[in-house]
Amino acid sequence: MTGSLVIVGTGPGKPELMTPAAGSALARATDLVGYAAYLDRVPARHGQRRHASDNRVELERARHALMLAASGRDVAVVSGGDPGVFAMAAAIFEAVEAGDQAWRSLDIRVEPGVTAMLAAAAEVGAPLGGDFCAISLSDNLKSWATIERRLKAAAEADFVIALYNPASRARPHQLGQAFALLRTLKAATTPVLFVRAAGTSEAKVIASDLAEANASVADMRTLVIVGASTTRCVGRWIYTPRSEREAAS
Amino acid sequence: MTGSLVIVGTGPGKPELMTPAAGSALARATDLVGYAAYLDRVPARHGQRRHASDNRVELERARHALMLAASGRDVAVVSGGDPGVFAMAAAIFEAVEAGDQAWRSLDIRVEPGVTAMLAAAAEVGAPLGGDFCAISLSDNLKSWATIERRLKAAAEADFVIALYNPASRARPHQLGQAFALLRTLKAATTPVLFVRAAGTSEAKVIASDLAEANASVADMRTLVIVGASTTRCVGRWIYTPRSEREAAS
Repeated sequence: MTGSLVIVGTGPGKPELMTPAAGSALARATDLVGYAAYLDRVPARHGQRRHASDNRVELERARHALMLAASGRDVAVVSGGDPGVFAMAAAIFEAVEAGDQAWRSLDIRVEPGVTAMLAAAAEVGAPLGGDFCAISLSDNLKSWATIERRLKAAAEADFVIALYNPASRARPHQLGQAFALLRTLKAATTPVLFVRAAGTSEAKVIASDLAEANASVADMRTLVIVGASTTRCVGRWIYTPRSEREAAS
Repeated sequence: MTGSLVIVGTGPGKPELMTPAAGSALARATDLVGYAAYLDRVPARHGQRRHASDNRVELERARHALMLAASGRDVAVVSGGDPGVFAMAAAIFEAVEAGDQAWRSLDIRVEPGVTAMLAAAAEVGAPLGGDFCAISLSDNLKSWATIERRLKAAAEADFVIALYNPASRARPHQLGQAFALLRTLKAATTPVLFVRAAGTSEAKVIASDLAEANASVADMRTLVIVGASTTRCVGRWIYTPRSEREAAS
């Protein structure tokens, strides 16, 4: 008896931003595993079992999903955004590596989705129009020194910077520290965007600049974008030109 | 008479990886503007006009789309992947900035999609599981010195590196130069993935490492991922753990 496991990206939140492939993968599963808020996005289907968990027990959830698949169930692990970007896919493969050797021969697939920074960028224009990086500000799994090293390198490279997990109740101070560091490295006029609940019906944008950016407006549902030196406004949109020459003109 | 313009991300290629929101935006348009290969993805609809163009005339195409919208048409600019990532959205806003003042009051929207690096990552596991950056290797619009500076910073930060536009007939040598630079900065065993036509029925993966990576296997349809120091294999998958601690164990 061989089961399967698919890690499904449900996108930023609006049903119409979830791919049909993700919808099919969820519909085919015998078991759904995930954070309760993501499971709530999935229409109920008779006979399908739901295993909801807290948002912070990713490895435990991953092991549970793998055990179900190994027992012959067809499991969908329900992720927000894209499962490969600061979400459940890496946790699944960590659990495979540390777990039962038999898990390595399971049928495991990843179903991509629209990750938060793409939905956030679309809300304001095209701020990711040049080279960019994505950094999670959570220091639960890496040191703050590593995060600082990456912010410095991102400034040196003049990347547009997408900050995931900028703040939570347990981590209220990281974003302010990140802004303080970036203020020593980038122009005060650098655009900073706080996009809350991007790609949902509750999307809200606060546009600021690095000098004025107030870290306390960010929460768990906020994606923060810090511009490159070329990022700028035109009309009511914010974008980063593709070209250095364009920027200089 | 006021028209509108929406820049639509059709995803990596498979119809089931295009969001329903993108499909609706395309269906509502009176005019479709885009590179012919992307227009071919859109089902024909009676009365809808198609304006196909070559892939390399992005600003011209952007101006044409804006003129159509300003004349009252409801225009969809058809983009592959996500329009905000090395695609048409930035070109549209560049054209707005340089063009007719009236274009700034047009109804312009961006409809996000699954960008190539997410589809490529999903084909192999979760290589983008840590902090990462995305760099276009095209030096049509920026200098090679800028690209080198960004590759160096990415290595310094230990980002996973997604390389867009790694090669084309007009630019056959950039990827080899990038590998040569990265070999001086990163371990020879760093995983390197060539994912061609990710998210299509023709997807093909070549997994290599930095010492052995052969730049000549990449073409216009290839997305290249260079791992971080923690990126590794488990079973037939390649992933980057979320944690530094995990990587050290």
